[in-house]
Amino acid sequence: MPRHHHLDPHVFHNTLGAHSPANTNHPGDTITVETIDAHGYDANDTRRAPEPNPMSGPIALDGAEPGDALGVSIVDIALTRNTGWTRSSLAHNVVDPAYVPTLPDRAKSTWSIDRTTRRVSPQDPPASLAGWSLPCDPMIGCFGVAPAGDEAISTATSGPHGGNMDWRGFKPGTTVWFPVAVPGALFFLGDGHALQGDGEISGTGVETSCLMTVTLSLRKRWPIAWPRGEDGNGRFTVGNARPLDQALQHATTEMSRWLAEDGHDGVAISHILGQAVRYEIANVYDPAYTVICRLPAGII
Amino acid sequence: MPRHHHLDPHVFHNTLGAHSPANTNHPGDTITVETIDAHGYDANDTRRAPEPNPMSGPIALDGAEPGDALGVSIVDIALTRNTGWTRSSLAHNVVDPAYVPTLPDRAKSTWSIDRTTRRVSPQDPPASLAGWSLPCDPMIGCFGVAPAGDEAISTATSGPHGGNMDWRGFKPGTTVWFPVAVPGALFFLGDGHALQGDGEISGTGVETSCLMTVTLSLRKRWPIAWPRGEDGNGRFTVGNARPLDQALQHATTEMSRWLAEDGHDGVAISHILGQAVRYEIANVYDPAYTVICRLPAGII
Amino acid sequence: MPRHHHLDPHVFHNTLGAHSPANTNHPGDTITVETIDAHGYDANDTRRAPEPNPMSGPIALDGAEPGDALGVSIVDIALTRNTGWTRSSLAHNVVDPAYVPTLPDRAKSTWSIDRTTRRVSPQDPPASLAGWSLPCDPMIGCFGVAPAGDEAISTATSGPHGGNMDWRGFKPGTTVWFPVAVPGALFFLGDGHALQGDGEISGTGVETSCLMTVTLSLRKRWPIAWPRGEDGNGRFTVGNARPLDQALQHATTEMSRWLAEDGHDGVAISHILGQAVRYEIANVYDPAYTVICRLPAGII
Amino acid sequence: MPRHHHLDPHVFHNTLGAHSPANTNHPGDTITVETIDAHGYDANDTRRAPEPNPMSGPIALDGAEPGDALGVSIVDIALTRNTGWTRSSLAHNVVDPAYVPTLPDRAKSTWSIDRTTRRVSPQDPPASLAGWSLPCDPMIGCFGVAPAGDEAISTATSGPHGGNMDWRGFKPGTTVWFPVAVPGALFFLGDGHALQGDGEISGTGVETSCLMTVTLSLRKRWPIAWPRGEDGNGRFTVGNARPLDQALQHATTEMSRWLAEDGHDGVAISHILGQAVRYEIANVYDPAYTVICRLPAGII
Repeated sequence: MPRHHHLDPHVFHNTLGAHSPANTNHPGDTITVETIDAHGYDANDTRRAPEPNPMSGPIALDGAEPGDALGVSIVDIALTRNTGWTRSSLAHNVVDPAYVPTLPDRAKSTWSIDRTTRRVSPQDPPASLAGWSLPCDPMIGCFGVAPAGDEAISTATSGPHGGNMDWRGFKPGTTVWFPVAVPGALFFLGDGHALQGDGEISGTGVETSCLMTVTLSLRKRWPIAWPRGEDGNGRFTVGNARPLDQALQHATTEMSRWLAEDGHDGVAISHILGQAVRYEIANVYDPAYTVICRLPAGII
Repeated sequence: MPRHHHLDPHVFHNTLGAHSPANTNHPGDTITVETIDAHGYDANDTRRAPEPNPMSGPIALDGAEPGDALGVSIVDIALTRNTGWTRSSLAHNVVDPAYVPTLPDRAKSTWSIDRTTRRVSPQDPPASLAGWSLPCDPMIGCFGVAPAGDEAISTATSGPHGGNMDWRGFKPGTTVWFPVAVPGALFFLGDGHALQGDGEISGTGVETSCLMTVTLSLRKRWPIAWPRGEDGNGRFTVGNARPLDQALQHATTEMSRWLAEDGHDGVAISHILGQAVRYEIANVYDPAYTVICRLPAGII
Repeated sequence: MPRHHHLDPHVFHNTLGAHSPANTNHPGDTITVETIDAHGYDANDTRRAPEPNPMSGPIALDGAEPGDALGVSIVDIALTRNTGWTRSSLAHNVVDPAYVPTLPDRAKSTWSIDRTTRRVSPQDPPASLAGWSLPCDPMIGCFGVAPAGDEAISTATSGPHGGNMDWRGFKPGTTVWFPVAVPGALFFLGDGHALQGDGEISGTGVETSCLMTVTLSLRKRWPIAWPRGEDGNGRFTVGNARPLDQALQHATTEMSRWLAEDGHDGVAISHILGQAVRYEIANVYDPAYTVICRLPAGII
Repeated sequence: MPRHHHLDPHVFHNTLGAHSPANTNHPGDTITVETIDAHGYDANDTRRAPEPNPMSGPIALDGAEPGDALGVSIVDIALTRNTGWTRSSLAHNVVDPAYVPTLPDRAKSTWSIDRTTRRVSPQDPPASLAGWSLPCDPMIGCFGVAPAGDEAISTATSGPHGGNMDWRGFKPGTTVWFPVAVPGALFFLGDGHALQGDGEISGTGVETSCLMTVTLSLRKRWPIAWPRGEDGNGRFTVGNARPLDQALQHATTEMSRWLAEDGHDGVAISHILGQAVRYEIANVYDPAYTVICRLPAGII
């Protein structure tokens, strides 16, 4: 019978690697996890760990082996404090090289999070944004599994194992599968954002602490190369690389493989993707960028 | 008083340049233009001009001068024949380099266009797509103005002047402004698609002939660097370049400038774009790629 | 019998296109051409034409037709005045995006050219470079032929037709072949540099006026895709594109084709290029970058 | 007094990370190390470890701390067997995407290494290369130190810590400095090539086992961001990233910083690098590419 676990970690990790599990789940179990923000501050605004993106976990999934896929269904992302923060610049790499000098530096801004109205607003806004606010749309910035090849990879970046993908689509209602590379999969999560635009182009979302609830599942012998997922808008694949072109290539190739697994030949894949595919730019800030390739629901 | 012009060209152009005008409009005039498909076939499936993307026009706008912006409001895109065509492969540059050999070649597929039900379907579908169809969503693949610097630029590619941008958002309800570089602006249009996915990743949309209706306007002394526009979902900017990163940089920079023109400082721009921007990948197939930077309606 | 022509133009061009010939040569003829600097200043420091890179020419080659290759053997580049100029910054796109603000702006520096000692030196050097000079190594910054498809392409950029390639290897002793796209080929040249580092990373070489002497030849039915050439160090191919990866891909592909034309199969090409190829970065500043793929002399 | 160590490892590593030292050296010590080839085969052609690029080491340097630089002077690279191997294809990512299908697959070729004449030749050459050979030019494919941030990074790729850089300039006579990120530096080396062209574009050099001799030194409080070095042709910096443009940006920025440390202002840096810099493409095959920025000897 599925169980509901709780994890309030006292150890955090700045790499995704084969670290000792903080908890073991069985397929179908649900776990609610305290997460701290990208700079390590918890729900009480107490620093618990250094940057970048300290992770809660890892959570072992019983029975998971290399060649399987770990399913993560995002059930809930509760915001646990009344503030978040952003960088108040644009990333140098999302604007024309010569435009950079006119932008402000990497100063931080504090935002208020109103958990009743579910809106966020900068606490010391520039004049043109007095009284301005935006609706919350909580998401997971960084999550994934221990990578292959005995690597321990910084939570600042991403790869086939997931990691710091910073896509606003990683929110309640979304299920994502990660390729299992080590026994037990070893799942990490953290880096919650109360809100984020496409691309994470200021270098951050509204960074804050969260209580994240996910249900873990296991699909045996499903050797995916990149994360795959589905939500109410259809299925999607994830490519992580620099430059943006390469991230898009990985995501498109993975979707093409998925359609081939479903029995579509090359012409069918051309027809389906050529006339119906949708792309989303998750982030163009991290060391590896992230592009989503989406097949809208109802197309085939 | 605004007039309604009609243009059924007998000369077509494969470059955007300072060619002799086929017609002169005044600001506020509307013009309905016969366009032929990317390979030069018209509504009767008669070849009228060579590839790539033969353009109707140019249409001069009376009073337009360098430093102004030409506004093009897309009123209607009527499909004028019962067939279109696509490439039945994926472009080599949207998949992993090593994945290419498993894809089919550049063969063409003919599609039926049902103008009553407004659905398109491949005429000789692979087995997995028997009976399959998709809804029409007509768009302009290539349009723009004569470029600066006495250049004549192929309709296969794009730049600050517009050109072959292949964005499915260039459809009725959308207004786009192009930077005027020569007296009269010299506006070209053509390359209609009955439908296209993001990125034009099979190398084509459903290519067909159209009757395109646009209203032209003039904004004096508005020295934009890249095309800007608006539709029901907000305002947007367009960046055209390779690689995808650079196209995104141009689009983001142009949106940042637009916000600065509206009185927002660097911090405000960071807050607005960082937490609310949306990107769309228009094409990753043409010699220059196209990225859309969008500020959703209602954000500020 | 080969003739020696002289051209001191009074018309200059800022695009490579099908402009009226200033002179017609026969294969084997030699021509000595006055060229002005990138901003249009001549040997008397008189401005004769606007930027960018005003070209002398075009020179028609009798008998050249599409599908042929135009050979250009660089015989001599004589410097014709005692000054040149450079930008005194580094290009924004050759340094890390966040490093840009610490660099100076686009100010120009004047350099002395000592035509006796053949050394160049900045006229108002920073303290650390007092008394410093470098040896001259004159080269052609921009040359090429009218492009295909009725395009007229800015002399700021480059393509299969050549153009603004800014490679320091384009100097006396080098022969380069361009793909002929229009009858007569229509050859342009100019933009002389007294000296330039790899990549043209300050945005300029030491820009100056020159007297360039070249011998033109014609190779019938040699349908090359990109410029090819040879010098004392072996044969080379030229790729022009953004990003740098794509420029390298074009150059490598063209060299691979050349080896295949010589009878080498894929394994032989892998052995030769994999273990002996040399690359040079010509420029990483212009809208299209230029990479040289070189097969050293004596390898096969 | 400097000592001469010998290391014939029985443990090899496929990541650069904080693994237990196999040996400890003092600054000025020299160490001769047995290395095995990229697939793990030793001097007797016995497989000793799995791919990719199993490393010998790590070697701790006594006194090295974060913020210091580890100096590695390459004294000798002796080849220890009579064969090496290459891939007999070109990498998909160095040719035009559409050119790929005409190239052969990833088959391996065995090469003879004649240690007397110091020439290498494929054992089963294609007809066009019968009797063909090339001179040896031994180099280190992969070496570096434990990275920062508790990462363990695959020997297939590279970063600020060094790693799989595959530059033919890493050969006897060259000294390279790596940024120390952990106490003792933890230096790894291996992946010897008897010969390699620029870019490692067949995916390999002539891969073989070696006896590598290096002298280690320590430069206290020299917080370099990327590897720096010098050889008989001058000083150089190393940038590791994708795409090639970013690798070049890192290398150029590091060289610019180095010149600033020497007292040159921005204008001086522009003059020096703009007119005298040289670039070399080390590899365009690995997950991160490597570009060398070189300041020729005698320039300043």
